[in-house]
Amino acid sequence: MKIALDAMGGDSGPDVAVHGALAAVRTLDGLKVILVGPEELLHERLKALAKGDAAALARVFVHPASEIITMQDVPVDAIRRKKDATVVVGFDLVKTGKADAVVSAGNSGASMAAAVKKLGRLPGISRPGIASFFPTLKKPVMVMDIGANVDCRAQHLFQFAIMACSCSSLLLQHKQPRVGLLSIGKETGKGNALVKETYPLLQNSPLNFIGNVEGRDVYRGDVDVVVCDGFIGNILLKTSEGLADAALMMIRDELLKSWRAKLGYLLMRGALSRFKKKVDYAEYGGAPLLGINGTGIICHGSSDANALRNAIAVAADMAHHNINAAIVRHLSESAAEQVSIA
Amino acid sequence: MKIALDAMGGDSGPDVAVHGALAAVRTLDGLKVILVGPEELLHERLKALAKGDAAALARVFVHPASEIITMQDVPVDAIRRKKDATVVVGFDLVKTGKADAVVSAGNSGASMAAAVKKLGRLPGISRPGIASFFPTLKKPVMVMDIGANVDCRAQHLFQFAIMACSCSSLLLQHKQPRVGLLSIGKETGKGNALVKETYPLLQNSPLNFIGNVEGRDVYRGDVDVVVCDGFIGNILLKTSEGLADAALMMIRDELLKSWRAKLGYLLMRGALSRFKKKVDYAEYGGAPLLGINGTGIICHGSSDANALRNAIAVAADMAHHNINAAIVRHLSESAAEQVSIA
Repeated sequence: MKIALDAMGGDSGPDVAVHGALAAVRTLDGLKVILVGPEELLHERLKALAKGDAAALARVFVHPASEIITMQDVPVDAIRRKKDATVVVGFDLVKTGKADAVVSAGNSGASMAAAVKKLGRLPGISRPGIASFFPTLKKPVMVMDIGANVDCRAQHLFQFAIMACSCSSLLLQHKQPRVGLLSIGKETGKGNALVKETYPLLQNSPLNFIGNVEGRDVYRGDVDVVVCDGFIGNILLKTSEGLADAALMMIRDELLKSWRAKLGYLLMRGALSRFKKKVDYAEYGGAPLLGINGTGIICHGSSDANALRNAIAVAADMAHHNINAAIVRHLSESAAEQVSIA
Repeated sequence: MKIALDAMGGDSGPDVAVHGALAAVRTLDGLKVILVGPEELLHERLKALAKGDAAALARVFVHPASEIITMQDVPVDAIRRKKDATVVVGFDLVKTGKADAVVSAGNSGASMAAAVKKLGRLPGISRPGIASFFPTLKKPVMVMDIGANVDCRAQHLFQFAIMACSCSSLLLQHKQPRVGLLSIGKETGKGNALVKETYPLLQNSPLNFIGNVEGRDVYRGDVDVVVCDGFIGNILLKTSEGLADAALMMIRDELLKSWRAKLGYLLMRGALSRFKKKVDYAEYGGAPLLGINGTGIICHGSSDANALRNAIAVAADMAHHNINAAIVRHLSESAAEQVSIA
């Protein structure tokens, strides 16, 4: 298994990518990583950071790419102008069979655009999307779409459900993932026009549809897949990040108000940082691009080496389980069922 | 100032309302509270819970209402069938000038329906909505709409901005509240179709519009009013509640894993509960119904006496500042500006 890693995508430069690649090959059996970026620089950083670990160095490769797409670049425009950009070259490695998957912590719109351009859509999929795991009190829940598609039709949400279920059931060993439709009340008939149109499609499908779920249900862990359009999903994701950060700051402020609490804080600092890690979605291995004819994972721009290592692990897992074959199979099964109902 | 309190609205029965009314008259100068509900029962509970506090008893009144609208009732249907329901009678007291505002912790859809039926809309307002304060690292931010209107047009969002600004500037003494449009990227042009249509309306208005804001900006405190449709607003609200609850449970779990952290937890329990209070939006005095020709506040069904007391305080404040006059004035100013631009 060979995973291409966009070495210039993240906010903190290539060292994080090199550390991530080294961590991946050291902890994941039989895996190889291809760092995509400026050849000379990456060889130099690799040599410096591997500290003579020949076994690891033997499993990390460098593939040249001379251009970088920044967070400010307009995605579709950027991938057209910068044909030798790291993320474009990464997806080309998948297209040509030189890599099994790509991981990038760069501009997520550009990653999606490069994926669609180089690999195309899976047969029958009208809109690929981005899925992401959210932490809960129980198992992580997969939410789709978290930002690729802002104005959706019911059929798109229906396909998000199929794709996320295929992915979640293989990665988290759910037999029949429970699918919820994000809405503003549990009762059938609650929601906006899009939700009301999507509801019967999910209900008449072979999916294990449990009905509408509310915002507060996302973190309870009683649903495995939550379906929504990319506008809502993105706001859900970013609100959660913002609240988690604000909550930790408010707790810290409260703790520094008395010596008792200050002492308490010192004693429990480790536990608080474990909590922060738990709500940090980077820990869950990034966000899979689903619906493209290949495997790609995007990560937060601020991902550290461990987050990249986790994303590489998930990318390898997705390619290993052939999630795309499962998506295509489930899509055709549900289409057959829809025809037989009609 | 007389505030009507729906004594049968909340999940925990009339005692909470009676305690809330007593707390309000004891802590807020010159205020009177009218408990709306079963007369005999309320007089009995009032006598029992006031414990001979004659000064307080002299400022809490009871107005009879024989029916109750439950959380399961369908709003519009319920207010038509149950003409003597506590919340309907409450708004009738405002209509007939016997109360200055109503507070209810009952079915929020029924409160909105009763408000519109009894009091009507403010002139020029096409859709009344529900606003709510969210805690941030700085001053609370007002988000509108949080659930009354699920499918909106740009003009509705524009009016939400006017209404929330009028309310927030008078209640929180903002001179020029900073208004943000909730979207998935700060750049102009990012967002769904509704956001793209609403953006120029806000930009060409006299409001202090700072552009798009993202989910993570809500809790930073760098924006005073966040505008979105009621579907998104409701998901934002409930996701936040769910995450705050889950976060506290996850932190507690982490803390019980080692004796050091356990001791830390004991020392900082007070600080954690102060944090919980801070993120508890009930503390902020409920959610004002804006755009109706009168003053109404809805509260969470699980509101305790203190939350009801705070909502009564905000209701009195809103009536005292005549927020509705400000809304009508700002609406006509912005209409004039729009005409002069055209």
